[in-house]
Amino acid sequence: MKTNAGRFFEDYRVGDTIVHAIPRTVGSGERALYHALYPARHALSSADSFAQGCGLPASPLDDLIVFHTVFGKSVPDISLNAVANLGYAEARFHRPVWPGDTLASRSTVIGVKQNSNGKTGVVWVHTEGHNQHGDLVLDFKRWVMLRKRDLDAPAPETVVPELSDAVAPGSLHVPHGLDFSRYDTVAAGSPHRWSDYEVGEKIDHVDGVTIEEAEHMLATRLWQNTAKVHFDATNREDGRRLIYGGHVISMARTLSFNGLANAQMMVAINAGAHANPCFAGDTVRAWSEVLDKADTDAAGVGALRLRLVATKGDSGALPLRDEAGKYRPDVLLDLDYWAVMPK
Amino acid sequence: MKTNAGRFFEDYRVGDTIVHAIPRTVGSGERALYHALYPARHALSSADSFAQGCGLPASPLDDLIVFHTVFGKSVPDISLNAVANLGYAEARFHRPVWPGDTLASRSTVIGVKQNSNGKTGVVWVHTEGHNQHGDLVLDFKRWVMLRKRDLDAPAPETVVPELSDAVAPGSLHVPHGLDFSRYDTVAAGSPHRWSDYEVGEKIDHVDGVTIEEAEHMLATRLWQNTAKVHFDATNREDGRRLIYGGHVISMARTLSFNGLANAQMMVAINAGAHANPCFAGDTVRAWSEVLDKADTDAAGVGALRLRLVATKGDSGALPLRDEAGKYRPDVLLDLDYWAVMPK
Amino acid sequence: MKTNAGRFFEDYRVGDTIVHAIPRTVGSGERALYHALYPARHALSSADSFAQGCGLPASPLDDLIVFHTVFGKSVPDISLNAVANLGYAEARFHRPVWPGDTLASRSTVIGVKQNSNGKTGVVWVHTEGHNQHGDLVLDFKRWVMLRKRDLDAPAPETVVPELSDAVAPGSLHVPHGLDFSRYDTVAAGSPHRWSDYEVGEKIDHVDGVTIEEAEHMLATRLWQNTAKVHFDATNREDGRRLIYGGHVISMARTLSFNGLANAQMMVAINAGAHANPCFAGDTVRAWSEVLDKADTDAAGVGALRLRLVATKGDSGALPLRDEAGKYRPDVLLDLDYWAVMPK
Repeated sequence: MKTNAGRFFEDYRVGDTIVHAIPRTVGSGERALYHALYPARHALSSADSFAQGCGLPASPLDDLIVFHTVFGKSVPDISLNAVANLGYAEARFHRPVWPGDTLASRSTVIGVKQNSNGKTGVVWVHTEGHNQHGDLVLDFKRWVMLRKRDLDAPAPETVVPELSDAVAPGSLHVPHGLDFSRYDTVAAGSPHRWSDYEVGEKIDHVDGVTIEEAEHMLATRLWQNTAKVHFDATNREDGRRLIYGGHVISMARTLSFNGLANAQMMVAINAGAHANPCFAGDTVRAWSEVLDKADTDAAGVGALRLRLVATKGDSGALPLRDEAGKYRPDVLLDLDYWAVMPK
Repeated sequence: MKTNAGRFFEDYRVGDTIVHAIPRTVGSGERALYHALYPARHALSSADSFAQGCGLPASPLDDLIVFHTVFGKSVPDISLNAVANLGYAEARFHRPVWPGDTLASRSTVIGVKQNSNGKTGVVWVHTEGHNQHGDLVLDFKRWVMLRKRDLDAPAPETVVPELSDAVAPGSLHVPHGLDFSRYDTVAAGSPHRWSDYEVGEKIDHVDGVTIEEAEHMLATRLWQNTAKVHFDATNREDGRRLIYGGHVISMARTLSFNGLANAQMMVAINAGAHANPCFAGDTVRAWSEVLDKADTDAAGVGALRLRLVATKGDSGALPLRDEAGKYRPDVLLDLDYWAVMPK
Repeated sequence: MKTNAGRFFEDYRVGDTIVHAIPRTVGSGERALYHALYPARHALSSADSFAQGCGLPASPLDDLIVFHTVFGKSVPDISLNAVANLGYAEARFHRPVWPGDTLASRSTVIGVKQNSNGKTGVVWVHTEGHNQHGDLVLDFKRWVMLRKRDLDAPAPETVVPELSDAVAPGSLHVPHGLDFSRYDTVAAGSPHRWSDYEVGEKIDHVDGVTIEEAEHMLATRLWQNTAKVHFDATNREDGRRLIYGGHVISMARTLSFNGLANAQMMVAINAGAHANPCFAGDTVRAWSEVLDKADTDAAGVGALRLRLVATKGDSGALPLRDEAGKYRPDVLLDLDYWAVMPK
């Protein structure tokens, strides 16, 4: 067999490191496509002039371009045969990625646990993305449920990693040189600074975007994520293509500009759940809740911990979960992240 | 409220200047997308070698990339709540925009007039786009009809600006250094020069393009134009998304290559009307009429004033308007502009 | 008539050279779009770091970007009125194309043969693509069937060029400096080297992609290929747009990564047939057969001759042709090419 059949549960051993294939040079083409695919408007990733006014040499690529690229490389080795993507934790963005940088990705297995049915198991990995200089640009942990290839394979010793509920504010990496002390709120599109947001505050981001097949496929291919469920309409009985969860993350994050225009960069993802699948024709809306606030050492820079929820209906006012604790059917995404903002 | 609710009629005061948010660095990614979204073939915006043969240092970005970017920035402040986009006038392109340039946009209110119904009014603005050096790259006037937020707000003093029917040929800005004296008609794709066109001549551009939802949304987002009618299929009762009028302008202008291949650059827009809305599934065709001709001071460069009409049917031979003076229902666009051409 | 009506059979004379219009600067935007439109993952065209590890100064543009661009320029002069694209032969890639290069294209007529019906004829051309330095980057021969404009025009003297069944291995151009002696199979995504493939071996590339209207139009426009059948849904009675054959070539070649990840560059196309038309909604799959193997002078570089077949069904196991020798209806593409691979 010369084709990649993907890995199964018993192919993962705690401590193993898997170097993912196909490093990728990202540049102004990827940025333009990102801005065509999503309503991306945060000024720091839009204009060199704005970024230079914030102490950076040029406009960095949107953080989620980095996330999708590093994540996409891991798909053939980690989640090609995944029954479910169960969660993310402890994602940190370590430094900006500039047009022309080349990203590579690798994962270390940090946990395995066979399910009691004997047919599947959960694998935890720690994935790291590096640039062409070998500098870490992003790392995160995620866990997936995988089938066993051989049901008779013995269960491995259970190792469940300890994961933080949230990245501690003190360990957030604010990009070197970032300085919001002369921040231009007019150019950024909103007067609302870090001090204007209160823990518990909820923001409805107002706008909705109806999803098209062509768009989610363009996006998913751009990150070289090749899971066939996203592309092959014959793969499911209902003829629908499952949309890459990252497409919903980017859609929700960019919709959140309207209300969070100054939340310029994601610096950490604390947790994330793809609550329900998204399909073409769904109209995605988003709302955010302020979960926490923290100071940083960088000049004029505060951090805001946000819950970002995407729905496919108009249910922003309803509770996220039903009485049994299950996500309501129109909730698509429940993401918990840290962003940096001018104080 | 931290989200942008847009402005209403009574929020505009003659003489006020509004600095639009989110400057934008445009480059080779935006060019490639423009060429993927439209059948753009004018040689000057296609190849560095051709542009260098015309005295420019490199191939400038397509003029309409500049128009859409500068226009798109004004949408949240000017037309988010517009009932209608009523017209354009006196648009002039002042200098080329190069890959890597950063564009910013601002508008000054030059007219207000409350309608007799007391519920709406017309606002005229003068919008200017600048590059990162502060040089003016484009300015235009446009007027929109807006709702009043408070019907009891007093009517402002009426100010209606005087607008020219057309930009005077003497005030057209031919890009510094542009020289068509050694123009290569073979590389440009047509032997027909300025002297070959006669006032009154009509050209059917032959080809048609059927519009897709994914394409007009990609285009509109690329210019960071976020008016929700373009993206949210739940916004109208019929489930259709209204297509950004600029998408039709670009489609018609690029279709006009077939018959006007040497009309290399738009240098002014005299007037423009979006006669009827365009929806996905419409097949857009275009024809042009030569309205005027003028000489310029630049070597070998003539100017042609053109009417560019886009239709969604095959009605090029019919009159534009019915007996009551109303645009026929399949007319999408009626645009009046100046282009430069080799003499 | 200022619009291009295209050429007819009697407009071609053996020995004539037609310089195609609109040179084109290609760059990182075109690369990003190529990776969004197709599941392109060959590492050499993905990452500067990988290319530098193979002796090249940077990552070259995907070979098929070059093919489509050079081919697209020839469409208005060669195939605008084609009844059928009959075949390709003797295509050779001579040197890499780098971001920022400008491509131009010209064709010489090398054969004409009027059909016995007196209404149509076959024209053979030799098309060459050059970069801005005048260096040949690609040449190929193709032949098309064209209508006569004037049925009474006399038949020209028949000239049928001699075409090779395949480019001889000794005349393949391996890019200057390419060195696979320290090739990184992990970064490339597969351990299977040239020596692991055997003549006669067949590989099912597993994955399928369902085709969307928006995507094939974006692709086709990007190469400035303006044949109206690809864009105008009113052009056929069934309201379908015919998909540019090159879209299927790129889809199949990029799908072939899964099983041929180390077939890094196409260096020649020996033959190609678009067996049946492709339409939106079709799910494209691909398989390959190893036809031949050859050594090259470049360090560590072997050549593999491959048949690449695209189908719209799941018929990889069936014969390509029925008993009458006709391609089965679900075969889209039958392409014969040479690729280079690490030994």
